[in-house]
Amino acid sequence: MTMKLIISNGTFASLRPGAKRTAVTGTMVIENDMIVFLGEHLPQEHDTPEAVRIDGKGLFFMPGLINTHGHAAMSLLRGYGDDMVLQTWLQEKMWPMEAKFTAEDVRWGTALSVLEMLKGGTTTFVDMYDHMDEVAKVIEESGMRACLMRGAIGLCPADVQEAKLREAVQFARDWHGKADGRITAMLAPHAPYTCPPGFIEKFVQAAHDLDLPLHTHMSETAAEVAQNVADYGLRPVAHLEKLGFFSRPSFVAHGVHLTDEEIEVLARHEVAVSHNPGSNLKLASGVARVPELLRAGVTVSLGTDGPASNNNLDMFEEMRLAALIHKGVSGDPTAVPAAEAMRMGTLYGAQTIRAEKLGLLEPGMKADIVAVHVNQPHFVPHTDFVSHMIYSASAKDVAHVWVDGRQVVKDGQCLTLDEERILYEAGRCFERLLER
Amino acid sequence: MTMKLIISNGTFASLRPGAKRTAVTGTMVIENDMIVFLGEHLPQEHDTPEAVRIDGKGLFFMPGLINTHGHAAMSLLRGYGDDMVLQTWLQEKMWPMEAKFTAEDVRWGTALSVLEMLKGGTTTFVDMYDHMDEVAKVIEESGMRACLMRGAIGLCPADVQEAKLREAVQFARDWHGKADGRITAMLAPHAPYTCPPGFIEKFVQAAHDLDLPLHTHMSETAAEVAQNVADYGLRPVAHLEKLGFFSRPSFVAHGVHLTDEEIEVLARHEVAVSHNPGSNLKLASGVARVPELLRAGVTVSLGTDGPASNNNLDMFEEMRLAALIHKGVSGDPTAVPAAEAMRMGTLYGAQTIRAEKLGLLEPGMKADIVAVHVNQPHFVPHTDFVSHMIYSASAKDVAHVWVDGRQVVKDGQCLTLDEERILYEAGRCFERLLER
Repeated sequence: MTMKLIISNGTFASLRPGAKRTAVTGTMVIENDMIVFLGEHLPQEHDTPEAVRIDGKGLFFMPGLINTHGHAAMSLLRGYGDDMVLQTWLQEKMWPMEAKFTAEDVRWGTALSVLEMLKGGTTTFVDMYDHMDEVAKVIEESGMRACLMRGAIGLCPADVQEAKLREAVQFARDWHGKADGRITAMLAPHAPYTCPPGFIEKFVQAAHDLDLPLHTHMSETAAEVAQNVADYGLRPVAHLEKLGFFSRPSFVAHGVHLTDEEIEVLARHEVAVSHNPGSNLKLASGVARVPELLRAGVTVSLGTDGPASNNNLDMFEEMRLAALIHKGVSGDPTAVPAAEAMRMGTLYGAQTIRAEKLGLLEPGMKADIVAVHVNQPHFVPHTDFVSHMIYSASAKDVAHVWVDGRQVVKDGQCLTLDEERILYEAGRCFERLLER
Repeated sequence: MTMKLIISNGTFASLRPGAKRTAVTGTMVIENDMIVFLGEHLPQEHDTPEAVRIDGKGLFFMPGLINTHGHAAMSLLRGYGDDMVLQTWLQEKMWPMEAKFTAEDVRWGTALSVLEMLKGGTTTFVDMYDHMDEVAKVIEESGMRACLMRGAIGLCPADVQEAKLREAVQFARDWHGKADGRITAMLAPHAPYTCPPGFIEKFVQAAHDLDLPLHTHMSETAAEVAQNVADYGLRPVAHLEKLGFFSRPSFVAHGVHLTDEEIEVLARHEVAVSHNPGSNLKLASGVARVPELLRAGVTVSLGTDGPASNNNLDMFEEMRLAALIHKGVSGDPTAVPAAEAMRMGTLYGAQTIRAEKLGLLEPGMKADIVAVHVNQPHFVPHTDFVSHMIYSASAKDVAHVWVDGRQVVKDGQCLTLDEERILYEAGRCFERLLER
């Protein structure tokens, strides 16, 4: 049976590059998981009595936000060590705790993050972690969309490396296309500085064999770039290029420290960059060259990174940071305008993960939709809703969320997950990690 | 009659510099407008039957946020021109519209901002604008606390200058100490680049005569600093010092472009700086040298600036920006730690406006208090509430607000102002400005 939803009197983001206006007011029709109409007046053929109808007055509708880099289960370590030197933070805080993570910890940490993301308007996220079966099960239950991969650190004996690679491949085989297509898989050697070249090459080969894209961390800190040069005589981009990484559809997280030549290479190979401004600032990694990347034609999307280094999963905040910091650091107030920041959080995110049917509110696209209440003080006057979403909004302003045509958040409440249980279990997991 | 409020089972921010822990759990007692007790167990003498009691379980209490620089009525121009070159934005967008502002526009624009600020946990703000009687009346009605001043631009004939000075002085005489002491006044020549030296000197003299502090914009952009050197042969700090500005208790907004020597002069004269990170980034003014200012012993507080250049009045966002950008730009992840960012938004704000009884939750301090619901996904696990407020919270997380011991926000709703009317009137004012 066809499920039809008609949203009338709404204002909808119009983000296709080159569009004359960034918002249109009118009616949207959704059939099952797809948008089938958006325009001023409802055509008669869609005006059917069995349709569910929503009055969109006072709501601004935008494409679901796409978080292109993260480690959801690390929410269990939110606030457990801040304002520290990176190596101390990793060695004394993060790694000892993460080494104790069980499948159950990953389950509840991920559920906590998925709950936060859905309520905050993020409909798709990229997750690179361990115990990925647990992550996939949470996605299945939550109704969210995700691009999942087992992140493999190769600083270990050959047999352990092999086991990790097998696990990554098996996960991709088991879950790619599952949950009604809401789950896709990728392969992800963790980073050039944590994976020997031969290990990365095996992932490249596996990606060819499975016809899957690749993802990795790259050039997050100046120190890791210097280390790459010391170890291999090449900066990370040339290093990954040499290992064949860019022969696959691929994207990298961070990309903070890039030369003009490296930007050129990324553009040539159509390698997208997941820009993680909150994490990069908090860990003092630096400020990525986003205006230069965009000018060079590189697809730049946004990621929160793990909640321990952010410390929330509010994609409105990442869009705002992207719009603000590149102005402040470059001295150019026209850098990353509001509509471009919103594309980074939506359309460019879709392009990053090669999801052709996500990122725009248009007929033929998936119905991944966020509605924000605009009759609030910080959105008045109603001058420019895209500006308001970028410069004034937060995750807490989200009223309703649909993924794949199914409503998953209504009036700020998640319909698919048990919030009270998740908060309780996540708190308990953290207490047990401390005791273990 | 004494009104007594007892908040039990709460967790309270403990921000006195040097305190062993940043939060204490226990009970707070408020009598009328003052905090009279904070400790683990309620002493018997406070356990009186007529007291109003609140269960503080699941709430984190912090001092009311203090926004030390803004132009509240400019909320009417929120989103009316973004992502533009500063001079174009001012000349084509802001100034033509502001020239049309009437007292009624200032009234509703200010009410819109006060509503947003109160709901977002800001209990005190500094406002420098025109039609200040209207601003003061809104403050009186709202229950908020404010430090108000008529901002005077001196690029006009002598008689107009005189009229502005008289207006500024009269406003201070009329309103200083009013609204049960919630309103204080200052004097404010707009900026060295908009006020001739002789005009600034008259404000300095008036501040001496009235025994009031001074406030001004200073060194927001590199261009205005260069202009100051070209016009007067001095950078702004030496210029203002020469004009006697720092002979009064005073503070400056922005202070983005400062040399080591200028920081030294500010520290010596105990001139506080209102850091406006959101506005400075959005207008591409640059990044203030906050770690250096703090190291030199300068009091650095936080301001949103006007809502047209921010574009919200969320002080949680300013605290987070202060904590994030100085790490990212300096490369030092220990710069501006969470507790210091919260002090910038509270205690240092109180010191900036010389309000000795604000900025800390301690007996003997005014009961300006904000309560945040912490049983939410982005605050779990409950590792460190100060970290959570800085790195995860937004204005929308505020549940309750008290100013001067009076509850002004309850469960996210403002008790003193008519939200529906204000949103309507502010929207109408904007429409009429467009038509005029």
